[in-house]
Amino acid sequence: MTTLARSARFAERTARMRASTIREMLKVTGRPEVISFAGGLPAPELFPTQRIGEIAVEVMRERGAAALQYSVTEGIPELREWVANWLTKRSGQSFSREDVIIVSGSQQGLDLLGKLFLDPGDHVALECPSYLGAIQAFDAYQARYLSVAIDEHGMLPDALEHALAHANPLPKFVYIVPNFQNPTGRLLAHDRREAIVRICERFDVPLIEDDAYAALHFDGIEHPPLISWNSSSPIIYSGTASKLMAPGLRVAWIATKDHDILDKLVLAKQGADLHASSLSQYVFAQYVNDDAAFIRHIESIRETYRKRRDAMVSALAREMPEGVTFNRPDGGMFLWCEIEGVDTADLLALASQSNVVFVPGVSFFAHRERTDGMRLNFSNSGEEKIAVGIERLAHAVRTIAGATR
Amino acid sequence: MTTLARSARFAERTARMRASTIREMLKVTGRPEVISFAGGLPAPELFPTQRIGEIAVEVMRERGAAALQYSVTEGIPELREWVANWLTKRSGQSFSREDVIIVSGSQQGLDLLGKLFLDPGDHVALECPSYLGAIQAFDAYQARYLSVAIDEHGMLPDALEHALAHANPLPKFVYIVPNFQNPTGRLLAHDRREAIVRICERFDVPLIEDDAYAALHFDGIEHPPLISWNSSSPIIYSGTASKLMAPGLRVAWIATKDHDILDKLVLAKQGADLHASSLSQYVFAQYVNDDAAFIRHIESIRETYRKRRDAMVSALAREMPEGVTFNRPDGGMFLWCEIEGVDTADLLALASQSNVVFVPGVSFFAHRERTDGMRLNFSNSGEEKIAVGIERLAHAVRTIAGATR
Repeated sequence: MTTLARSARFAERTARMRASTIREMLKVTGRPEVISFAGGLPAPELFPTQRIGEIAVEVMRERGAAALQYSVTEGIPELREWVANWLTKRSGQSFSREDVIIVSGSQQGLDLLGKLFLDPGDHVALECPSYLGAIQAFDAYQARYLSVAIDEHGMLPDALEHALAHANPLPKFVYIVPNFQNPTGRLLAHDRREAIVRICERFDVPLIEDDAYAALHFDGIEHPPLISWNSSSPIIYSGTASKLMAPGLRVAWIATKDHDILDKLVLAKQGADLHASSLSQYVFAQYVNDDAAFIRHIESIRETYRKRRDAMVSALAREMPEGVTFNRPDGGMFLWCEIEGVDTADLLALASQSNVVFVPGVSFFAHRERTDGMRLNFSNSGEEKIAVGIERLAHAVRTIAGATR
Repeated sequence: MTTLARSARFAERTARMRASTIREMLKVTGRPEVISFAGGLPAPELFPTQRIGEIAVEVMRERGAAALQYSVTEGIPELREWVANWLTKRSGQSFSREDVIIVSGSQQGLDLLGKLFLDPGDHVALECPSYLGAIQAFDAYQARYLSVAIDEHGMLPDALEHALAHANPLPKFVYIVPNFQNPTGRLLAHDRREAIVRICERFDVPLIEDDAYAALHFDGIEHPPLISWNSSSPIIYSGTASKLMAPGLRVAWIATKDHDILDKLVLAKQGADLHASSLSQYVFAQYVNDDAAFIRHIESIRETYRKRRDAMVSALAREMPEGVTFNRPDGGMFLWCEIEGVDTADLLALASQSNVVFVPGVSFFAHRERTDGMRLNFSNSGEEKIAVGIERLAHAVRTIAGATR
């Protein structure tokens, strides 16, 4: 990470703006000889490129003027409607299009929520580790963090309760990724879900649920989002087209029954970019309109990622020396790997010399307190590449562990 | 405008977030019986819908994986290159792709610049009146404003100099729309351009040049942007695809030789939405790649808007009673109309009953100090509709003027 020094010319918040390691790494991972476990990139070979071309022609023929014109900030009605139905099915709660705003990727949702809730110095409670894009978004609003411990079943309700009970002031919101968390791939245990909702309710702290990976389960089990439970305090749900179809569209959504929050989000989005790409919105809405084809597409993603998860877990088990631990996530795009006594930033420097890269774990810790973890993405590389990449990585681990011991 | 009350749950800045009259009006102007002079909407019948469909197919076939995948924050190289060339031609200065960042519409550029420069209470110098989307973006960063007087030839250099000489502290930047200004349609006189650059340079205040309408000139005269002049203080140029091709893509750009600013913009954009829609970027880049077709397209826009400007000016001259003044802009999408002794918000209430709408001028004044102006858009309606709409509007003016006198 690089931090740019602030001069008097710039706002104070710029001192907190840092380049994401992931975004910076995207620049080098384009080279064909590099095997990247770094980005959270979907498998591009599964993108329905031909179908998107056909859809674009249909959209231009039938709705061309609307798809190229300025549009309402809330998003196009048909897409808000689809999101409401999708979420109704997932949650068992009844959502209408009035509960939904379309945003320009879920990163924008996080930025707008930061803008809405955070004055400089305000607290945010989040998992330890948590999604670095969220930390980056909230950093720009000069947030401070309450790190809440997680174990292999996600956030610990007791730890959250303890954090809120001792917080002064209370955090402005709790941010959580319950399903196949970024960066750990962990799934929040079912019996912890209502507990976390109730704790937030008791302290009247809004709960932001980032559910980007929910559909990417490998065992056929649908996990109810936290917004499935009724609560007297706000639950704000974030979902995205990026993991369902394609991130290049920059289409995502925020849903909440709290219309005071939603109205303010619309105002914040007006000032931020007027509305998400109309072309992208119409293309995605048309794509998901064919329910059967869309479900088949999701299933092929699940199947592919599951195999890649298996390939990575086997390779890690086969190649890694003692002192290396990792998990076998039941979905999503990432697993989490810890290397006893090794700073993974040093490991990255070594590994990248043999053309394999990953994201060092430190960026996912709001207080940058742990350096021995790393996030490994398994969705973006084929099984053979994964095997080769893990072999190279294990070699680097042995080299660095030998050197440091 | 509606202002939502702030509660302790939200950040202080939310007290300044207001719904744009224009955005709110977009919701009613969809009704076919309404003639709207309100939005800054391009003529949808000129959108190259069929060509965009063909291009989308080409992009999907040739670059589908890239156009649907995550991309770099700075924007795709071919589009940054095109912008650099386009700006080099327009300015006579040499720009490279390294001087350019692609943003999700020029509104996002304004938001990111606000985020970069403005701490609460910081000053911004801008034209009086100025673009309300800019005021809305800067309001969210709790800016205060120095209004600089304009006449029929744009910002008065003496007024700017006086404002900066007496400012304490100096504004963080000067924001200006030199070509066919939004909302007045006015063109900054050639001999004022260098003067304004030099004043900003003398006070070392960054200059943000919003050049959305430059290409929409009706008399064949290209006006050099302010960034054409060398300056030791930063000039930050904002351009957009919205007025050249289609706003629904949400593709725009910021260019500056000041790479400290550009690097910070990239960081701010990372946290705000990662990158602009890759699909939109590839589609626009492919569209402008055919230089001859693109120039023909711009020329047909100019031709159409020129006729509509003529239709509106004739209708105003024919229909409006005494006490109404308006200008005849040499380009762009708007003209400015003042009605002696009438609050145009009241006029809008009356006019909308006879299905004609516009934007009351008060929203364009940072201190909301004048209520007798209105912005009339002439690009979005055909000549006959314009004649009918102005007739209705003149009727409303006579009614309200009769009532108030």
